[in-house]
Amino acid sequence: MLHFEDLTPGRVFGAGPVGVSEADIVRFAREFDPQPFHTDPEAARDSVFAGLAASGWHTAALAMRLFVTGGPRLAGGTVGVGVEALRWPRPVRPGDALTLEIEVLEARVSQSKPHQGVVRLRNTLRNQQGDVVLEETVVLIVPRRST
Amino acid sequence: MLHFEDLTPGRVFGAGPVGVSEADIVRFAREFDPQPFHTDPEAARDSVFAGLAASGWHTAALAMRLFVTGGPRLAGGTVGVGVEALRWPRPVRPGDALTLEIEVLEARVSQSKPHQGVVRLRNTLRNQQGDVVLEETVVLIVPRRST
Repeated sequence: MLHFEDLTPGRVFGAGPVGVSEADIVRFAREFDPQPFHTDPEAARDSVFAGLAASGWHTAALAMRLFVTGGPRLAGGTVGVGVEALRWPRPVRPGDALTLEIEVLEARVSQSKPHQGVVRLRNTLRNQQGDVVLEETVVLIVPRRST
Repeated sequence: MLHFEDLTPGRVFGAGPVGVSEADIVRFAREFDPQPFHTDPEAARDSVFAGLAASGWHTAALAMRLFVTGGPRLAGGTVGVGVEALRWPRPVRPGDALTLEIEVLEARVSQSKPHQGVVRLRNTLRNQQGDVVLEETVVLIVPRRST
């Protein structure tokens, strides 16, 4: 289990791959982002995405899955307070296999709660060709080993 | 259908409510954020959340669902390029009913693609008590009515 003290800036973690099928993309989108370019392969062909594309929120959820199941095991769990920036440079497609790279950008002790730290990380999610499909800077709360 | 020209700064849209059950929370979390405070009501009681809480990515996906199914109907669909800031001030709980408020912050013509606009909106998701459970600034691409 990693604590605040272990998350030194520059440290890098990896996780994945996780696969995404057409059925996965359609199922997520029907529930949370029902737009033809996410739910209907036929209609998606003539859309701005030129083919079926995963909802960006599906992509973000897959990044979280990789972080939690294959990334750094944090004491207290992976508890986010927010996201500073999130971009989707390219869509996720049926059949893609995604891997996550996690880099520690900054770690500081919380001013209001000195028994814990505030850690900023950059998550970069790539497909099997190495194209970036999501990049986000997340802010997590991580307990200190001792105070 | 709304175009870029309709999205004047200060304009506000609403959507919802959508309900969230314990089963919904557990099902999403098992797939995308398998941590005890999101998947196990018993274990969640002694966690930092003091009870079962929805994954923040489930909360974000529900905001998208409300935007797409009940928010402004945008020409070309709801196509995001990114999120500038996303915060989860409070967790979503089983039984919550969520409503979304969408406010246009800024609208400008794209410099690289002058047939479309870049629109910044603030989405505020609240529970039935009026507590903010998610706030995010999103950036969308919206076609112009004419060029």
